[in-house]
Amino acid sequence: MRIIVDAMGGDYAPGEIIKGCINAASTYQGNLKITLVGRKNAIAEELEKQGVSDEIFDIVHAEDVIAVDEPPVMAIRRKKDSSMVKGLELLREDRSSVFVSAGSTGALMAGGLLKVGRIKGIDRPALAPLIPTRKLPVLLIDAGANADCKPINLVQFAIMGSVYMEKVVGRTNPRVGLVNIGQEENKGNELTKEVYSLLKEQDNINFAGNVEARDIPEGVVDILVCDGFVGNTILKLTEGLALTLFGILKEEFTKSFVAKIGALLLKPGLINIKNMMDYDEVGGAPLLGINGGIIKAHGSSKARAIENAIKQAKLFIENKVLENITANL
Amino acid sequence: MRIIVDAMGGDYAPGEIIKGCINAASTYQGNLKITLVGRKNAIAEELEKQGVSDEIFDIVHAEDVIAVDEPPVMAIRRKKDSSMVKGLELLREDRSSVFVSAGSTGALMAGGLLKVGRIKGIDRPALAPLIPTRKLPVLLIDAGANADCKPINLVQFAIMGSVYMEKVVGRTNPRVGLVNIGQEENKGNELTKEVYSLLKEQDNINFAGNVEARDIPEGVVDILVCDGFVGNTILKLTEGLALTLFGILKEEFTKSFVAKIGALLLKPGLINIKNMMDYDEVGGAPLLGINGGIIKAHGSSKARAIENAIKQAKLFIENKVLENITANL
Repeated sequence: MRIIVDAMGGDYAPGEIIKGCINAASTYQGNLKITLVGRKNAIAEELEKQGVSDEIFDIVHAEDVIAVDEPPVMAIRRKKDSSMVKGLELLREDRSSVFVSAGSTGALMAGGLLKVGRIKGIDRPALAPLIPTRKLPVLLIDAGANADCKPINLVQFAIMGSVYMEKVVGRTNPRVGLVNIGQEENKGNELTKEVYSLLKEQDNINFAGNVEARDIPEGVVDILVCDGFVGNTILKLTEGLALTLFGILKEEFTKSFVAKIGALLLKPGLINIKNMMDYDEVGGAPLLGINGGIIKAHGSSKARAIENAIKQAKLFIENKVLENITANL
Repeated sequence: MRIIVDAMGGDYAPGEIIKGCINAASTYQGNLKITLVGRKNAIAEELEKQGVSDEIFDIVHAEDVIAVDEPPVMAIRRKKDSSMVKGLELLREDRSSVFVSAGSTGALMAGGLLKVGRIKGIDRPALAPLIPTRKLPVLLIDAGANADCKPINLVQFAIMGSVYMEKVVGRTNPRVGLVNIGQEENKGNELTKEVYSLLKEQDNINFAGNVEARDIPEGVVDILVCDGFVGNTILKLTEGLALTLFGILKEEFTKSFVAKIGALLLKPGLINIKNMMDYDEVGGAPLLGINGGIIKAHGSSKARAIENAIKQAKLFIENKVLENITANL
């Protein structure tokens, strides 16, 4: 089993990316082969720093790096010798492997489409991260790959999300909720009203009706379906609100000596809450709909997040996600 | 100055509504006249319970009540003798007054349009609540009155929101942010891209560019402009996440004896945070664009929220919001 890793993508590349790969290689031993794509010298230097032989990895040199603020399509077309483009080309050559990158989401989406192509029957691929809730994490699809969607896109998101949750995350008969501004069937905008009536007819998913944003943090379904604009807003607002509330808590809890003692006594509880909101535990988000496995790791991924993204990639292969999506269309 | 209050709308009507009116009447003494609309007997009973003479209010009898789950337009058309319809008719007769209701948002919007009408030059009225942030509260417009919007609607929301923030909330030269899924001008869906280019040309507002959902809780602008689907999602997710996080905090903080002591020491800080997220302080949301002042109080409003909504209504009149919106179109 082969995992291709973009060694140069993300805020902490290549150091933390390579550390994550070393940890994954040690955890899974001979069960997987990791291909590192990126600047050979930088990779070699990092491996030496970590005291690891370069023989445990395949290393494929790529001179360039695509930055997060580059226009995606242009970056993919022009930077032919970038770690992302080369990684995607390796994926195209061997569709039984999976590509992991913490680089630009837009470039990964554009590159996936241009270099690897779509699954037959899928019009638009979608980004599907797991977001933390009070109960179990929930798959949010689409989280930002498609700012404008047609009803059929959301139906395909629901099918792909269901396969992924069942096969990779291990959620049996996962419930699909449609993000909407009311619970009743007739509520919503033109898009969601039409999607509701289509999802209702779909017999290959477990449709649970509309979910209002207020109920999202309680984890009332397994999969949240929405267009990429709404999904991206949900993803970023959840992240932002958690950060802001922790910031305020920290401020209040260090205001006085008494408060500091109180916070010390509450430390185990506070750590529990922080862990619950921790994206590193989740790993990465699959780009579902590309005819090849792509796991997008968070831009701020450190070693543990990369290790988890590789674990996800492994499950993606083992559970034949691509074949299962095709079979369910 | 006259404030018309729907005595029967909201989860705690008529008790808490009337209590809020009594408090407002005592705070503002002779400066405002409150008209209570609703079942005469229920109102009289409540006033007696509070030991207050019914002479401090005008009381207008309405036999019916519109429930929150009734289809809005049908409810307004059929329940001609409801407190909401009668209140809106009083507003139409005297456009220098303001109508306050904690009843159904949808019915209030439909009733506002059907009974009172729009401001000339405004295509769609919008619901504009203040949402709590780490800094000052931010006006969110539209928070759910219009599930589908055209670019021109959002431009009008920006203008109305700016007038309201400046005149009623007292924010000088308020900054308008467009809710979007990227910071750069070319990011977004078809709607926001077009709105961006229109807002940039607008010289009667202080346009600050795109705001990503991640930055909303930090209070980076004064006004957030978006379509009603996105706005409603932001409003409800903010509310839901705050509730869920407080729920988890509470759980963790009562898990052990040590944790309970810690929570006790942190009580002042925790109360500060809770107050920050408290919607009662904010009062209600204006329905901007209706040719008459309408303040929608939260459905779960208690006396303090109603008193604050009445204060908002008073500022609405004193600062000639309707005239100022018209002047800025």
